[in-house]
Amino acid sequence: MDKQIAASRIQKDMELVEPLTLTPGQGITRLPFTIEIRKCVDTLTGRMERAGMTVREDAAGNLIGRLEGSEPGAPALIIGSHFDSVKFGGNFDGMAGIVVGIEVVRMLRDAGVKLRNPIEVMGTHDEEGMRFGTGFFGTKALMGEVDEDYLRRFNDADGVSIYDAMVCYGLSPERIKEAARDCEKEIAAFIEVHIEQGPVLENNGIQLGLVNCIVGMQRYFVTVTGRPDHAGTTPMDMRIDAMECASAVISQMSYWTREAGGEGTVATVGFAKVTPNAMNIIAQEVVFSLDVRSKEQGRIDQIVSKMRAGLESVCSEKGAAFTINEKLNIAPVYLNETMLAMLEKSCEKLGFSYMRMPSGAGHDSLQTAPRIDTVMVFVPSKNGRSHCPEEWSEYSDLANAACVVYDMLVSNYQ
Amino acid sequence: MDKQIAASRIQKDMELVEPLTLTPGQGITRLPFTIEIRKCVDTLTGRMERAGMTVREDAAGNLIGRLEGSEPGAPALIIGSHFDSVKFGGNFDGMAGIVVGIEVVRMLRDAGVKLRNPIEVMGTHDEEGMRFGTGFFGTKALMGEVDEDYLRRFNDADGVSIYDAMVCYGLSPERIKEAARDCEKEIAAFIEVHIEQGPVLENNGIQLGLVNCIVGMQRYFVTVTGRPDHAGTTPMDMRIDAMECASAVISQMSYWTREAGGEGTVATVGFAKVTPNAMNIIAQEVVFSLDVRSKEQGRIDQIVSKMRAGLESVCSEKGAAFTINEKLNIAPVYLNETMLAMLEKSCEKLGFSYMRMPSGAGHDSLQTAPRIDTVMVFVPSKNGRSHCPEEWSEYSDLANAACVVYDMLVSNYQ
Repeated sequence: MDKQIAASRIQKDMELVEPLTLTPGQGITRLPFTIEIRKCVDTLTGRMERAGMTVREDAAGNLIGRLEGSEPGAPALIIGSHFDSVKFGGNFDGMAGIVVGIEVVRMLRDAGVKLRNPIEVMGTHDEEGMRFGTGFFGTKALMGEVDEDYLRRFNDADGVSIYDAMVCYGLSPERIKEAARDCEKEIAAFIEVHIEQGPVLENNGIQLGLVNCIVGMQRYFVTVTGRPDHAGTTPMDMRIDAMECASAVISQMSYWTREAGGEGTVATVGFAKVTPNAMNIIAQEVVFSLDVRSKEQGRIDQIVSKMRAGLESVCSEKGAAFTINEKLNIAPVYLNETMLAMLEKSCEKLGFSYMRMPSGAGHDSLQTAPRIDTVMVFVPSKNGRSHCPEEWSEYSDLANAACVVYDMLVSNYQ
Repeated sequence: MDKQIAASRIQKDMELVEPLTLTPGQGITRLPFTIEIRKCVDTLTGRMERAGMTVREDAAGNLIGRLEGSEPGAPALIIGSHFDSVKFGGNFDGMAGIVVGIEVVRMLRDAGVKLRNPIEVMGTHDEEGMRFGTGFFGTKALMGEVDEDYLRRFNDADGVSIYDAMVCYGLSPERIKEAARDCEKEIAAFIEVHIEQGPVLENNGIQLGLVNCIVGMQRYFVTVTGRPDHAGTTPMDMRIDAMECASAVISQMSYWTREAGGEGTVATVGFAKVTPNAMNIIAQEVVFSLDVRSKEQGRIDQIVSKMRAGLESVCSEKGAAFTINEKLNIAPVYLNETMLAMLEKSCEKLGFSYMRMPSGAGHDSLQTAPRIDTVMVFVPSKNGRSHCPEEWSEYSDLANAACVVYDMLVSNYQ
């Protein structure tokens, strides 16, 4: 295992797929079941075959390169992540994990090492959910959670269903169930290398993040309703100002979140809409979003109930009304402790600095973890940026991840 | 003077103009230099002539009905307000003041009283500024503040200039300067009866408001700039959240305003725009409006400097930036003390409850007060509503205003 060779091979793979975007010059736009994805899959197929893998596309359009193990019938170790992107995103989100997987297989080949288990490098399809407003498509199909009805239920902005998009792409959507695998018998583990998409590793000068948890997430839309009176003629004590009530609560969110504490605990009000939104009319309505995440369910619940109590207090004082609509509620998912320990051992052996950390974003691993032993490895993101053309991780950092995964495999599955 | 007869004649006049709207069933939309205004002017002309006035349209499209006085060459007492409206507004805003003026003339005729001064009932054109994004057009022209250049400078949403709109309406815009009057020699006073457009009179059970001041007003757009990071992967202490900073200041506005105190002191954040406005991205930018009004300039300045200090404090703590752009800065205008005293005397004589109060909204009187002795009389607005189809004032309340103005005139100008 040569880190410099690994870095240069990873760079080559990454640069091969980089031009495959709908929006050249404006970052990576690779939406599911499009020509950009097809080209990407073709390129990755070539790289996988060169690395000695047998490559197939499953019924969901996931790409799977397989290197057989020494033990007949042993379940596969999957190294995977997604090849689709957001709109105007970066080249590293998802793709880095596939390329690192291919590099691990090249390292095994270079070293002449054969593991007991087969290795599968998997490029998953439509993790981001950008085109159909969904998400985790490929891994959902892998877990057997997608049927024909699902394929017909979701349309893109042009009214094209997943079903029809799959047909255009060259798949047979009526065979979608064939993408499902027997997780107990066929799969031993799911290993996902991914860019951090946040600033923690870089700010702490740490080389690798070992993800022990994907945070739980709750999302709400809150509507505060006041009365749209004249801004000049309505005295302060005769107004019901939705903006006043909403801002009183929004401004406390950060305090309540710090107070709740704990790892990965964040809360964000990123969206707000004011009605009628005129400078000379008191706000009748403010709708705002709340996105709360934490490793621990209890802390999420605590923040949400603080917000509810805050709304109750300010709205009853001012005579306003409010409603809270839940949009999303995902429990925290803990990753595999045994494999985390293996990765730690490999980091120590190879001299990489590392930290255990939660993932604040959802990933394919969120889908696989409930039924497959799953771990994630994070590499630093430059300035913590992601989902934008500036997204960047050093190839040498990706090579570090490849080395650690390689070492963990040869140390434990040989 | 018979209050019940006055109320029924006022009702008739108001009902005659009520159907003259571009938006039947959705309130009153009477935009300047349109067919609705022409019909309205024709109707008012008929009512003025019936009341014994000589009627003319001036070069700005103001309607002026004149009843001569007994003293040759004496300056005119103008009773006026506007006949245009906002979009989807009510029938009382502006129009009520013209109709009350006509009723005062009818009362004089009924009583056989001739004042020393001529009386002019004036319907002003385009006070609201709805079509061309301006305001106070008729009274500006009256004061000699409008020239041809001004008429060509402002266009409506279809690109039609005031100049061209005036031509279509049948006026000669090149003669606009002829609308200007010699305020010292020709005009003795400007008396404006108007609906309150706020809840104060109704809430206090008071019949008439004697307006001693039109509040000063400052308007700002504030931009707070943070950093658009991922809502899940950016820890609380590594984010620069424009929403957090903006809401901290917005939520304090009401406190700072009450602290500043004083009559007519209000502050409103009615507008806010968030960028990128996505629930999973920390707000990069929040733009919000601030509208501050007060009878006293010093209190306005105090509120604005509290906001500035608040922004400085929170933005420097969080690493955010901000800019404050002034959009409007109008000093308070005090109305004529002598005439206010006359009106008070008449209220007491006639047994009407009254209070002195500031006007929180701008009116034609704002334009005239600097050079003409000006007073305003407010009548209660039902539920404080205005600029909406629900806008309503009782005809008997308008009759009260007519009685008070009538009594004030016969007591002081006979």
